[in-house]
Amino acid sequence: MTTTRKIPAGISARHVHVTEEHLKLLFGPGHKLTPIKDLTQPGQFAADERVTLVGPKGVIQRVRILGPVRKATQVEISKTDCRALGVSAPVRESGSIEGTPGIVIVGPYGPVKIDQGVIVAKRHIHFTPEDAKEFGVKDGQIVMVKTEGERPLIFDDVVARVREDFALDMHLDTDESNAAGLNQGDMVTILDDAAISAIRKA
Amino acid sequence: MTTTRKIPAGISARHVHVTEEHLKLLFGPGHKLTPIKDLTQPGQFAADERVTLVGPKGVIQRVRILGPVRKATQVEISKTDCRALGVSAPVRESGSIEGTPGIVIVGPYGPVKIDQGVIVAKRHIHFTPEDAKEFGVKDGQIVMVKTEGERPLIFDDVVARVREDFALDMHLDTDESNAAGLNQGDMVTILDDAAISAIRKA
Repeated sequence: MTTTRKIPAGISARHVHVTEEHLKLLFGPGHKLTPIKDLTQPGQFAADERVTLVGPKGVIQRVRILGPVRKATQVEISKTDCRALGVSAPVRESGSIEGTPGIVIVGPYGPVKIDQGVIVAKRHIHFTPEDAKEFGVKDGQIVMVKTEGERPLIFDDVVARVREDFALDMHLDTDESNAAGLNQGDMVTILDDAAISAIRKA
Repeated sequence: MTTTRKIPAGISARHVHVTEEHLKLLFGPGHKLTPIKDLTQPGQFAADERVTLVGPKGVIQRVRILGPVRKATQVEISKTDCRALGVSAPVRESGSIEGTPGIVIVGPYGPVKIDQGVIVAKRHIHFTPEDAKEFGVKDGQIVMVKTEGERPLIFDDVVARVREDFALDMHLDTDESNAAGLNQGDMVTILDDAAISAIRKA
């Protein structure tokens, strides 16, 4: 890697992706998501719609839905949220929900019980193929990322995801941004091979 | 540093230290803390007593008091808690509360309003002088610590604290342990100088 370019951090608060079918059960027949803010990744948006998550040990209200609708409903929460709800969700990449726990989601029209789909998002960086080339990374590669917030740290096990319709952005959840003292848009650095190898040896 | 010894991680959930005077206001005249569990650091204990924190934006109930009583009341919460309460606490070492925000603490007997004392604890390692010698660290030195939990990372900016009555133990808050996927007692490693220098250069 030779570039000195940095990558903006994008902090994902807890959120829910829903199917068309679940959207109707939560918000009523014919309901469409109301986009209120574009997200960094092209085509993705924060919706005005919010739901309540009901776990065996607790409840979290006003959890935002992100659009557009997807093929599977997915609830992305932090480990802190897991404890509050009493749900033991694994760290997974988005879309990899096989064998994950379910939960009850409640909307103004009614509830939905999903049998799987609750995950803690695995930290990752979105690259376009051009950006990936500049940073010298391949889709699926694990990189380390140095932060310079109020509580500096180096995230290991960060997955590079490369796709034509992505925008350069590192995704973290709120536990991770809080542990690093990072704010939305703070710039982070991919570690070079020398540093990675020194860490692995230590 | 030549030792290959590792250090156990101790995860601090949100908690409160109180003065004798505040204890009386919260729990009534003559009240004494009821120890229910010894902590890793000698003489420190979790008390049966719990209080409610009331911030401008939210409330957190059942927050445990740690004993014994201290010379200043101090509330240690995570950045996640800061957002929930609406309190903007800085990352500080224990005891360094000058200029930190206050909060309302409510006990079964009554409330106390503190004008300062809310902090997010700065991550640190407790060493005895013998352990510090073995690890080659001095009181106040900043070290880096590698974790091997579900979400491996390297914590930078970890303060070494050396005192005769300490026990070897790295203190993290719940945002930090969640970001690392660490559980109580998981072992962590201090990075050697070669790794630190490679990271600083990257």
